[in-house]
Order: sequence, then structure tokens, then C-alpha cells
Amino acid sequence: MNFIDKLNAAWRSNDSLLCVGLDPDLERLPEQMRDRPDGIAEFCKAIIDATADLACAFKPQIAYFAALGAEDQLETVCHYLKQRYPHIPLILDAKRGDIGATARQYAREAFDRYGADAVTVSPYMGFDSVEPYMEWPDRGVIVLCRTSNAGGSDLQFLDVGGRPLYQHVAQLVADKWNRHGQCALVVGATFPQELAQVRALVGDMPLLVPGIGAQGGDIEATVKSGRTADGAGMMINSSRAILYAQPQGDEDFAAAARRVAMETRDAINRYRA
Amino acid sequence: MNFIDKLNAAWRSNDSLLCVGLDPDLERLPEQMRDRPDGIAEFCKAIIDATADLACAFKPQIAYFAALGAEDQLETVCHYLKQRYPHIPLILDAKRGDIGATARQYAREAFDRYGADAVTVSPYMGFDSVEPYMEWPDRGVIVLCRTSNAGGSDLQFLDVGGRPLYQHVAQLVADKWNRHGQCALVVGATFPQELAQVRALVGDMPLLVPGIGAQGGDIEATVKSGRTADGAGMMINSSRAILYAQPQGDEDFAAAARRVAMETRDAINRYRA
Repeated sequence: MNFIDKLNAAWRSNDSLLCVGLDPDLERLPEQMRDRPDGIAEFCKAIIDATADLACAFKPQIAYFAALGAEDQLETVCHYLKQRYPHIPLILDAKRGDIGATARQYAREAFDRYGADAVTVSPYMGFDSVEPYMEWPDRGVIVLCRTSNAGGSDLQFLDVGGRPLYQHVAQLVADKWNRHGQCALVVGATFPQELAQVRALVGDMPLLVPGIGAQGGDIEATVKSGRTADGAGMMINSSRAILYAQPQGDEDFAAAARRVAMETRDAINRYRA
Repeated sequence: MNFIDKLNAAWRSNDSLLCVGLDPDLERLPEQMRDRPDGIAEFCKAIIDATADLACAFKPQIAYFAALGAEDQLETVCHYLKQRYPHIPLILDAKRGDIGATARQYAREAFDRYGADAVTVSPYMGFDSVEPYMEWPDRGVIVLCRTSNAGGSDLQFLDVGGRPLYQHVAQLVADKWNRHGQCALVVGATFPQELAQVRALVGDMPLLVPGIGAQGGDIEATVKSGRTADGAGMMINSSRAILYAQPQGDEDFAAAARRVAMETRDAINRYRA
């Protein structure tokens, strides 16, 4: 099953638009994990087990593994997810962008090594830096469009022929780059009006939406701005708010993560109709 | 010594603007290397030994290592270079770009794990995605501006207030992002006139210039367009043309690489005055 179909199936089967981001910051792991050599993988696997019936996708952020030289643990996490929960898409958040020959190496990394169903990429180097990923016909390519950080405006809000660059990118991907229906876009939740403008430009193309949770984006505005006619179309990401949820009562970290993931999924679902 | 000073010293001591790119493609390695578990590292070390007196910098491309799960060999190569040739800058070509918290992880990867003197980054997510790298005050941050691939024009040539986006990026980096003198820019050799326009905008800022060699950029036009008043200011990269040079007579791969590196350095030097 290709990425887009798998995503559609996960939206339905888990009744969820929630994407759980896996950003394992060693300093914030539970103590019993922090001191284990495989602590990062064990932490991520526990989060996956606690939330797999609540999520439409999991999104490991490779930087957190690479900083620690823990690519082997990322492999473990990816293989665990694919074996245990093969119906949930795995998105590798890597934001790669390089010339064709190099992009092909990054595609091999994401798709062959980690088995990702989709990978995030940057549009700055143009179509021929994105095309090599499409040689894996069942995988998805999620292009940065409007990012959730304040500095995102530095380039993305520049006026290009009467509209901001991010809208030009959205149109470019929808009209030209998405030749085989493999594309999605990253559009931050911190700018709901801009999310609505992207949605108007790209039809039913899936949007990966970071910025709720720790980054403060408003769930109601996000869902109402980005949903498709059938109340889906988004992977709304939350990482830190779920991973490092404060336990209540006798909860452990995984139970706390599950509770916050469920609250977030349900809060999202309130506004999908 | 910080990156810019180290680069200036290497330009002088080796009388060279040549940056040797390390893109170890397993299929193109000499047979005796291809079958060794540490073959990539041994190949890169041999190239480094053969060209260290001819280069102003070495630039490993992380994608080639990541595709093979060979980050340990990249560590080996980086540590070898830093121990054996501590006066030659090490540039990690990674083209990272992500929000602040994640960018900090990528900076730890590049600077702490691999010991890079500088790293390439994408400007698409704006200043706050680049700033975390500057917390390492002795390291360099090399921002993508005008890339050497054909698709680079898709975004970089868009008109932004009367000039192309890449010129806006050049000005932005020169005027605002380069607060502590740590920045350089990537500008491809495939567009010499554009290289000249960037040079006019950014004063003496160093330019990393890919696109000669296998990508076909013209050396004379590149040097004349990009040089500073003192005949330096550039790291002119060649990767494949050196790494996979065809041996002549009884040369081995390293001698062939040395010969092509020397020819390239000398061809560059012809036009520096």
C-alpha cells in the first residue's frame, strides 16, 4: 500500500489526525531510560505502544538520534514500528535537500535503511532535488512549505509575484511536483489563516502540521483551517507535549503520554465535522 | 583558531582554493576497498593523504555515509583529518535546516560528534533555524544561496522585490545573519555571472563553490567571477572528478586523485591574480 493510501486508512481506522513526533531528548527521558545504552529506543518503543491506537502516523526526528550517534536505535525504533504496527505510517523527519546524486543517497537512507513511508524535504534546491525520492513509488515526499517557527517568515513570507513564497511553493508542488500523487506539505499550525490559504491551493493534498502542543498552536483554528471536506487531510503533529507529559497520580511516563495523546486526538476530532 | 581564520591560513599555506569533496560512492570505490568493512573510511583517508597539501578544505557529504549506515566511518575520517591535518578546515556537507531545538541537535552532530569546522545549512526556515549553530563561536555556518543544480532556479531565481531570491538571501546573510563573522555562502560554479553578483553583495565573505569537475563549471569564469581583491575568498569544490580520477600508467587511485587535484588547484591559481 502506498503512503497516501496507508495514511487514509490510518485516519479512518484510528479515527485520528494526530501524528506523534518522536524527539527523544536524553535530558528529558525518564531516569530508568536515561542510563541504558538502548534507552532512547526503549523510550520510543514505549511511547509507540502507548499511542499506536490513537495516532495516524509516527514521526521520528532524526536530529535527536544523530546528535547522540544513535542511528542504530533509530533503526530499532523504525523496525519495531513497522513490524508491530505496519498499518501506521512512519514519517522520517529529516528535511533533506541536495542535488540529485546526493538526494538519491538520502532517499536510500530514509526508505531502504529506516523503512520510512515518507520523508520531509526542503524545496530550496528545486524539483530535481526532490524528484529522486519519487523513484520509490510507494513512498511519500513531504515538502516544507510554511514552517511553524518565527524565522519561517524570513524567506517564506517574501512577496513573489503578488503572493508569499510559501503559497508559490504550495502551488508549485500541487501543479508540477506532485506528478505521481506522492506529495504532501509541511504547514505550521501557528498560522491558521495561512493553513487555510494553502488548503485552498492544494485540494485534498495531505498536510503535515507541526506547532500545536509545546509550540502553542490553537487546535480549533488549526483543524477548521486545514481540514478537507471529509474532515481529514492533516497529520497534526505533537511531540514534546506527549513525550514529556507530566504524570498524574500513579501514572508512569507512558500512561501520561497516552492520556495527553488521547486528549489531543479528541480535541482535534471535536472540530473535524 | 576559528573557521574563517583557519580557512584563510589554509588558502595561504597550501596556495590553494581547492576544496576536496568526499562523496564515497561504494560502487565506484577501488575493488580492494569495496569489500572491506572499513573500505569507505580507508578510501577517504587515502584521498586525504594524497591531497592534503593541495586543498584548502575537505568536505565530506554525509548522505553517502548515512545511506550505508556508515556514520562510524565518517567519524573515523573526521578524526583522522583533524589529528593528521589539523590546519585544514573540515566542512560537513549536510544542508540541515530545522527549528531551533532541532537545529541545536544538528549542530551537536556536526560540531561535537564529527568535529566539523563548518557545516552547510539551508536558509528556507529563516534565521532562527541557523542561529543555533552560531553558539559554537569558532565554527562556520555555510548557507545555501545559489546552488549548482538545474532545479536550483525553481525557487532561487524567483523575483523578490526586483531581484532573484538568491541575491536576497546573500544580502540577508551579509547584512543580518552574519552577526559574529561566522557565515559563508554556497554559490554554484555553473552560473559565473551570478557568482559575480553575489560577490558584489557580500564583500569578502567566503564562498563555497560546487559545480566544477563532474558538474561542468568553467574554472576561469568561476575564479574571475568569485575571487576577492586578494585573489582568494573561495572554496572551489571538486568531488567526483578527483575521487574517481582515471589512473594513468602505473598510477593507483590515490596518485590519480593527487594528479587531478594538483591540475585543478593549478588551473584555479592561473586566474587568481
